[in-house]
Amino acid sequence: MLREIVEEIEKIVGKEGIAKNVEDYLYDETPKRVRPKAAEDVVVVKPKRSEEVSKILKLANEKKVPVVVRGGGTGLSGGAIPLSPGIVLSMERMNKLEIDTENLVAVCEAGVTLRQLLEEIDKIPGLSFPPHPGHEGAQIGGLVANNAGGARAVKYGIMRNYVLGMEVVLPSGEILNLGGKVIKNVTGYDLMHLLIGSEGTLAVITKVVLKLIPEPGGTYTLVVPFERTEDAIKTVPQILRSGIVPLAIEYMDVEAVKAGEAVTGKRWPYEGGEAHLMIIVEGRDEDELLKVSEDIEKLAKKNNAIDVFVGVSRKEQRDLLDIRSLIYEGMRDVTVDLLDVSVPIASIPEYVTKCKKFAEEVGIKVLHYGHAGDGNVHQHILEVDDWEEKYPKFKNYAFGLVKKLGGYITAEHGVGVVKKEDMYSTLPQKAVELMKEIKRIFDPNNILNPGKVVDV
Amino acid sequence: MLREIVEEIEKIVGKEGIAKNVEDYLYDETPKRVRPKAAEDVVVVKPKRSEEVSKILKLANEKKVPVVVRGGGTGLSGGAIPLSPGIVLSMERMNKLEIDTENLVAVCEAGVTLRQLLEEIDKIPGLSFPPHPGHEGAQIGGLVANNAGGARAVKYGIMRNYVLGMEVVLPSGEILNLGGKVIKNVTGYDLMHLLIGSEGTLAVITKVVLKLIPEPGGTYTLVVPFERTEDAIKTVPQILRSGIVPLAIEYMDVEAVKAGEAVTGKRWPYEGGEAHLMIIVEGRDEDELLKVSEDIEKLAKKNNAIDVFVGVSRKEQRDLLDIRSLIYEGMRDVTVDLLDVSVPIASIPEYVTKCKKFAEEVGIKVLHYGHAGDGNVHQHILEVDDWEEKYPKFKNYAFGLVKKLGGYITAEHGVGVVKKEDMYSTLPQKAVELMKEIKRIFDPNNILNPGKVVDV
Ligand SMILES: Cc1cc2nc3c(=O)[nH]c(=O)nc-3n(C[C@H](O)[C@H](O)[C@H](O)COP(=O)(O)OP(=O)(O)OC[C@H]3O[C@@H](n4cnc5c(N)ncnc54)[C@H](O)[C@@H]3O)c2cc1C
Ligand SMILES: Cc1cc2nc3c(=O)[nH]c(=O)nc-3n(C[C@H](O)[C@H](O)[C@H](O)COP(=O)(O)OP(=O)(O)OC[C@H]3O[C@@H](n4cnc5c(N)ncnc54)[C@H](O)[C@@H]3O)c2cc1C
Repeated sequence: MLREIVEEIEKIVGKEGIAKNVEDYLYDETPKRVRPKAAEDVVVVKPKRSEEVSKILKLANEKKVPVVVRGGGTGLSGGAIPLSPGIVLSMERMNKLEIDTENLVAVCEAGVTLRQLLEEIDKIPGLSFPPHPGHEGAQIGGLVANNAGGARAVKYGIMRNYVLGMEVVLPSGEILNLGGKVIKNVTGYDLMHLLIGSEGTLAVITKVVLKLIPEPGGTYTLVVPFERTEDAIKTVPQILRSGIVPLAIEYMDVEAVKAGEAVTGKRWPYEGGEAHLMIIVEGRDEDELLKVSEDIEKLAKKNNAIDVFVGVSRKEQRDLLDIRSLIYEGMRDVTVDLLDVSVPIASIPEYVTKCKKFAEEVGIKVLHYGHAGDGNVHQHILEVDDWEEKYPKFKNYAFGLVKKLGGYITAEHGVGVVKKEDMYSTLPQKAVELMKEIKRIFDPNNILNPGKVVDV
Repeated sequence: MLREIVEEIEKIVGKEGIAKNVEDYLYDETPKRVRPKAAEDVVVVKPKRSEEVSKILKLANEKKVPVVVRGGGTGLSGGAIPLSPGIVLSMERMNKLEIDTENLVAVCEAGVTLRQLLEEIDKIPGLSFPPHPGHEGAQIGGLVANNAGGARAVKYGIMRNYVLGMEVVLPSGEILNLGGKVIKNVTGYDLMHLLIGSEGTLAVITKVVLKLIPEPGGTYTLVVPFERTEDAIKTVPQILRSGIVPLAIEYMDVEAVKAGEAVTGKRWPYEGGEAHLMIIVEGRDEDELLKVSEDIEKLAKKNNAIDVFVGVSRKEQRDLLDIRSLIYEGMRDVTVDLLDVSVPIASIPEYVTKCKKFAEEVGIKVLHYGHAGDGNVHQHILEVDDWEEKYPKFKNYAFGLVKKLGGYITAEHGVGVVKKEDMYSTLPQKAVELMKEIKRIFDPNNILNPGKVVDV
C-alpha cells in the first residue's frame, strides 16, 4: 500500500522531496527507555510549499495512510515517532522567514528553527522574540504545535502568547488561514488557540505569524546555592511575591548542575550545597540590575542561601545558561524518564519535598530541576536496579500528588504517546471525551499522528 | 412550556432566585437601531452556586429550552439578548472573590464585576490586574466569554492572557474544571482557550482564575492633537516601532472627543484639530516618564502634531480617561451602529483614510476612534437621513477592506447576533463549518445562546 503511494508522492514533491536516510527520522529526544518502537516502513517526505503539504494530506486521507509531522525532532513525548507504517512529513525545507518591521511580526514557515529566527532577529536593532524553550533546533511549527514554554516564561510567557496567526493544512488537504498580522480578533471561536498545543494531531501547521517586541534591557544571571532543598524552593514564590519579575527562576538539584558541567566542560561558580537557584534578572541599566540583584540576595540570605554569585558579562551568563540547558543531554544515557509537571507556585515546596521523600522510600533516584518560577518542575528519573518495578510506583505517587495540588502532568513537553495513559487517568473523563470529539471533527479518518494525545 | 419549568427552577434557586423585573434583563448596550427585538416570555434566573447552574442547565437541556447567560449586560453585539422564549441566566449573585497572594491569582465567580475586582486588588499593595476593557460594570464571566480587550492591551494584552483556569458548566449540566492556579499546562487540547471568546454558546463560565502581576510603575497621559487625521494615524505605528511600549494608544476624531466632553462635563486640554491621540505611558519613576513623554513628543511633532499636553496628576489622568471611555455613552442616542474592526497596525492609516473618503462619497457620517495601538479601530456610525439605505453600503465597503488588509470584522466586541452574517461572509467557509461542528459537540441540543455566533 505504502509502496503504491510513494510514486504519487514523488509526483508532488519531486525526487529531492523524499529522504533516503529514513533512520534519521524515526525518533525524537524522548528518553529511550520509555519511548515506543518506531515503525520503520515509512516514507519520509520533505515538502517545500503548503500546496505540496495539501496534496500529500489529501492523498493520505483518501488512502487512509497515517501521517506524522516532524519538526526539529527535539520533542520529549514521542510525538514525532511514527507508530505505524505511513508518511513522515518533515518540515525542514519549509524554512522561509520574513521579518515585517512595519507590523512588528515575524512570518515563519513551520520549518524555521528557533535558532534561525533568533539569528535573524538579532540583525534587526531594537526587536526581540523573548520566549526561549531549551533547544534551539526546535522548529517554529513544532514549538507552536506543542505550545512550548521554557525558562523565560516567568516574565515573557509561552509560545501561545506570541502566536498572532497561522496557516494550517487540514487532513482533507484544505489550507486554512487563522488570525494574521492582527493583535485582537474575536471573530468566532478561536480555532487558532485550539490548534496551539494540539501536537500535530488536528492539522499541519505550515506558517506562523509571531509577535515581536522591543528589545528588553540587559540581564544579570544569579546563581544561588542552598544547603537545603526546602530553603531553595521556598525562595521561589517569595521572589515572585516581592514584586520582582525575573526573566527566569530555575531550580536545580546539585547533581543536575554537575551533569550540566560534565557535558559542557564549563564551570559552575559553586560546587557545594544541595540545591541551586539560577535567576536571570532584567533591567534597563546597571543601576536597576544591581538593585534587583541586591533585593534577591537579601531575600535568599534570609532563607539561608550559602552565597549569591552574579554573572555579569555576556560570556559568563551564556556559560551558566549552557550548563542549565544541557542537563538533559548530560544525563540522557542514564535517564529512565523525564517528568514535567505543573503545580501552583506556592505548592512547589510541598511537591518537591514529598516527592524526594517518596523516591527515597521506594528506592529510586530522582533529580529535580526546572522552571520553578512557573511552577514547572522537571524530574529526572535515573536508572537504578529494578527501575521497571520501582518507577511506576513513583510516577503514580507523583501524578497523584500533582492532581491533588490542582496541577497537571505536563506543563510544556506535551502528551504525545508517552503521557497519553497518564492524561486519561488524571483529567476529568468529560474533558477527554470532548477532546476525542474534536479530534474526530478535524481528522475524521484519524490519519494525523494517530495514537498520540487522544485515541479515537 | 416555560410556565411548566418555572416551578422546577424555583425548587432549584428558591423564590429570591427568580427576578420579577424581567424588562431589566432583555437588552444589553448594543445600539438600538441594529439590535434584535428581545423575546419577552423569559424567566430570569439568578443562581448563587455552580450546582444550581448545573441543575438549571440539565433541566433546560432535557426540555430543550433556550438559555441565555447574562453578565453585566454591557455587551455590544446583542449576545445577552434572548431571541426566543426561555431562560435568562443572570450571574449577578455569583460574585464571590478571593485573592490568593501566595499564588498571585484572583479566583472570581463569574458574576464578579471588573469594578469589584479592581477595588479588591487596590487594597493589596503591590498587586495589579492590568487589562481594562472600557466598562467596569462588565462581569469577569462576560469579559472572559468575550475575550475582551480594551485600551491597555498595547502593553498588557487582553483577557485571554490572564486566564489561568476556569470552572464551566456544560449544557448537560456537567461541571468541568479547566486549567487552574497553574501557569503552564499542555495536558491535551486546550479546551479552556477554546471557551475563551465563545460568547456563552458552548458552556456557562461559573468561575475564573485570573493571573495577577506586580503593580506597574506610574503613568502620564499625553494628549496629542493633529490638524490632519493622516498625521495622527501614521504616528501610531511609528511610536510602536520606536521601541516605546505605551500602556495605551487611543485614536479619536475630534467630534468623538466632544461627545465625551459633553457626557462627562469634563474638559479636554485642546479644542481644535481634526484628530487626537491619547497616549498613556508608564514608567518606574518621573525620569523615565519624562524621557518617554519627550520621545513621543519629538516623534509626534515631526508628524505635525499641534502640541502635546501631558496629564500628570491622578485626577487629570482620570478625567482624560473618563472623556475617552464615555464617548459611546455620549453618542448612544444618535448612533446607528458601532464597528470594531481589527487590522494590521501598519494598515491603520490606509483603513481609516479610505473609510473616511468612502463615507463622504456615500453620504454617511462616521466617527473614528479606538485602540489604535492594537490595530483596533472603532467606527461610530451616526444617524443621517436615509441611513438604512446608505449604511449597508458603507459597512460592505469597510468589511471588504478589512478582509483585503488581512483583518477581522470584530476585534473585541464579539459576533453575538449583530455580526453573525458578516462573520459568515468574511471568514473562510471551512472555518465556519468547524465552528458549527464544535458547537454541536458542546451543545448538541442547541440550548445555549441559540442563534448567536454560529447557527446550527
Ligand atoms: C535539551 C532539550 C531542552 C528542551 N527544553 C524545552 C523547554 O525549555 N521548553 C519546552 O517547552 N520544551 C523543551 N524541549 C522540548 C522540545 O524542544 C519542544 O517540545 C519543541 O516544541 C519541539 O519542537 P520540534 O520542532 O523539535 O518538534 P518535534 O519533536 O519534531 O515534534 C513534536 C510534536 O509536534 C508535532 N509537530 C512538529 N511540527 C509540526 C507542524 N509543523 N505542524 C503540526 N505539528 C507539528 C509533531 O508531530 C510532534 O507531535 C526541550 C527538548 C530538549 C531535547
Ligand atoms: C461603554 C462601553 C465600553 C466598552 N469598552 C470595551 C472595551 O474597551 N473592550 C472590550 O473588549 N469591550 C468593551 N465593551 C464591551 C463589553 O463591556 C464587553 O463585551 C464585556 O466583555 C461584556 O461583559 P458583560 O459581563 O457585560 O457581558 P454581557 O453583555 O452580559 O454578555 C456578553 C456575552 O457574554 C456571554 N456571557 C456573559 N457572562 C457569561 C458567563 N458567565 N458564561 C458564559 N457566557 C457569558 C453572554 O451570553 C453574551 O453572549 C464596552 C462596552 C461599553 C458599553
